[in-house]
Amino acid sequence: MAIQKSASASATGPRLPLAGLRVVDLTSAVVGPYCTQVLADYGAEVIKVEEKSGDVIRWISGKSRTPGMSGKFMHMNRNKRSISLDLKQASGREALMQLVDTADVFLHNMRTAAAERLGLGSEQLTQRCPRLVYCGIVGFGSGGRYAGRPAYDSILQGGTALASLMSGADGAPRYVPYVVIDRTAGLMVAHAILAALFARERDGEGRTIEVPMFESYAGLLLSEHLYGHSFEPPTGPLGDRRLLDANARPVRTRDGYVCITTNTDAQVHKLFHALGRADLAADARFATALARIEHIAAFFALRAELLASRDTAELVDLLLAHDIPCMPCHTLDSLVADPHLQDVGLLETGSHPTQGQIRHIRPAMQMSGFEPSVRLPAPHIGEHTAAILSELGYTPAQIEALFSDGAAYTAPDAPPHPPQPT
Amino acid sequence: MAIQKSASASATGPRLPLAGLRVVDLTSAVVGPYCTQVLADYGAEVIKVEEKSGDVIRWISGKSRTPGMSGKFMHMNRNKRSISLDLKQASGREALMQLVDTADVFLHNMRTAAAERLGLGSEQLTQRCPRLVYCGIVGFGSGGRYAGRPAYDSILQGGTALASLMSGADGAPRYVPYVVIDRTAGLMVAHAILAALFARERDGEGRTIEVPMFESYAGLLLSEHLYGHSFEPPTGPLGDRRLLDANARPVRTRDGYVCITTNTDAQVHKLFHALGRADLAADARFATALARIEHIAAFFALRAELLASRDTAELVDLLLAHDIPCMPCHTLDSLVADPHLQDVGLLETGSHPTQGQIRHIRPAMQMSGFEPSVRLPAPHIGEHTAAILSELGYTPAQIEALFSDGAAYTAPDAPPHPPQPT
Repeated sequence: MAIQKSASASATGPRLPLAGLRVVDLTSAVVGPYCTQVLADYGAEVIKVEEKSGDVIRWISGKSRTPGMSGKFMHMNRNKRSISLDLKQASGREALMQLVDTADVFLHNMRTAAAERLGLGSEQLTQRCPRLVYCGIVGFGSGGRYAGRPAYDSILQGGTALASLMSGADGAPRYVPYVVIDRTAGLMVAHAILAALFARERDGEGRTIEVPMFESYAGLLLSEHLYGHSFEPPTGPLGDRRLLDANARPVRTRDGYVCITTNTDAQVHKLFHALGRADLAADARFATALARIEHIAAFFALRAELLASRDTAELVDLLLAHDIPCMPCHTLDSLVADPHLQDVGLLETGSHPTQGQIRHIRPAMQMSGFEPSVRLPAPHIGEHTAAILSELGYTPAQIEALFSDGAAYTAPDAPPHPPQPT
Repeated sequence: MAIQKSASASATGPRLPLAGLRVVDLTSAVVGPYCTQVLADYGAEVIKVEEKSGDVIRWISGKSRTPGMSGKFMHMNRNKRSISLDLKQASGREALMQLVDTADVFLHNMRTAAAERLGLGSEQLTQRCPRLVYCGIVGFGSGGRYAGRPAYDSILQGGTALASLMSGADGAPRYVPYVVIDRTAGLMVAHAILAALFARERDGEGRTIEVPMFESYAGLLLSEHLYGHSFEPPTGPLGDRRLLDANARPVRTRDGYVCITTNTDAQVHKLFHALGRADLAADARFATALARIEHIAAFFALRAELLASRDTAELVDLLLAHDIPCMPCHTLDSLVADPHLQDVGLLETGSHPTQGQIRHIRPAMQMSGFEPSVRLPAPHIGEHTAAILSELGYTPAQIEALFSDGAAYTAPDAPPHPPQPT
């Protein structure tokens, strides 16, 4: 697919799809910042509002070169500015209100009662700003008995049954080895905000959104595994056997593992042919998709037997030559060195003003007229506090007063951003 | 959070945020249909274009009451209509072109070369329809050497190193027990399309989008696990130790498992206090987040020791009373019976015209003025073929000719949809 990078806008630079939108982001950790990473990459102006202590991901995601600048934090917070305000002080809250008045989108992941205590509840803000798209990310929806409980990704991996589906031979539950629910919910928040912005463009009205992580993700997982219980009375058990079978895993080869999936009858027959066992296509247990589901254990056992005596590289070449979906298993080390990822430049080295050489992860998606890029380095805590207050019309003396009261803050090692004349 | 369900639109029914948009959807399996499920739930009119054999998920996801109507298919394809056309016939392709002329969004998950052979390449369609948002979902981006290779979720779980991160004590790679990459990429496609629609609303121009599943998901996973290699030279190893530690899992209790996460110093100190070991807060190994990362194995071992002698229910009550994030581990069975999910009505029983009583999974997200609902039951293959052709201006005789040539199709057990007078 040939995608024009800058279409008709070559003279003025690429048109970012969300250019001109301002997002005031009170979220921290992963679910909210990942959502606003998406919005920022699309060109929205995201202003991250942090406490003096900063987003927790600054601190719990490995060693940084200077305090509070972990790699994971920088990946999720590039293209954002940071203002640090003490919302326990009236003058800090007032500055935030001035900022919200300029916003198209406001989002937070506080508990609802905490947001309301700070004057940041949905009714409070949308009465003040009727065009605002207001979004609260909560662990559990306001309509159910767990409303208000704290939640983290790992809590929800247990609570949505994902950890129990991950149990191995020992029956002990496990977590998926990354914060999959935070990431999934973050993407759901992004589409909710984008749908609301689209609708506002047509009718001029703001929207209030609540994304409850527990039931949002439970709905996704149940759509995979409700299975026979999608019917009343059920037509079969809970749980998609094709995904949960102990042999639904990469297949052992002579020297490693290969991933291979054959969903269609044609693919299965090509597989038998490629492995020199075209005769198996006549076996009624394997001839059709429905039959293979009935005989899934026998099918997986046969596949394991057929692949065990071959080398991975040879198998991948052979199967790809027959257009059968397959790939060797990467480790993190080999993934970083993958030649396709190098071709597309997924990882690119750039210079951060205070962190030196760092590796950016580019958005992989391509859109005509839009060149995703790192326009702004990830900020230090409150790096842009003075600059943003100045833009809001605060005088140098007023800004100085906020700083001396502790209602505004900038980390001492942040590079300076002289306020713009107003 | 009090969310008005129907705001100012009570007389005319809820305003769906994407009402009035038409999506022509040539995707099958999960990644594309899950994306258009999101768009359809927001009110877009999604027309699913299927081959005579139908979307593969109709057939490989468990027993249905009548052929091709699996539970998983119905969850992902509610609120859509289906037209079945033979795109190998010129008259079938022409009918599709007539349909694309009426579309705001066109998406497919064919390989790029296959789409172009059918006259459905991005340049072919966007020259014809300059306002079209065109989206190709591919396994591997067009800028890299794997372009054009086939991909499935499981192939990519291996290829992105997720399967190797899932390895247990035996070192054998595993898959996450659902199609996590299809789901994640589907949400990424949704936000790309929504961003393009938003931009089009402002500048009137269509967009061409390519979402490569491999590098899109690899980027997400590397943002979790590039870790010390986010810096050049690295400040530490690849892989977030906090997520990959063998003890980063639900904790054994006397009668089961509990999920508990304490990220902040305050939470850790509350945990020690709740368990009657406030003295541990003075232990330098556990006093700060940075110290706990250095001593993560000791911290997890201590936690295991402190929880092992208590019952799950007692622990959850105790920890929630101290506002420490925790939850017992659900199984699929207990998840379906969860009282909070019942409070919010995540699962609701409804009647399908041909499948009898089935369980819908409601969108859990709430948005003011928008009541997510199942407006249309999941369709049989080509259930709306005649109705849609009629809407496009085809006469009854022309429609009859397409059916008798096999260029158009409707499954014999689909309920009738008499064409509307044009």
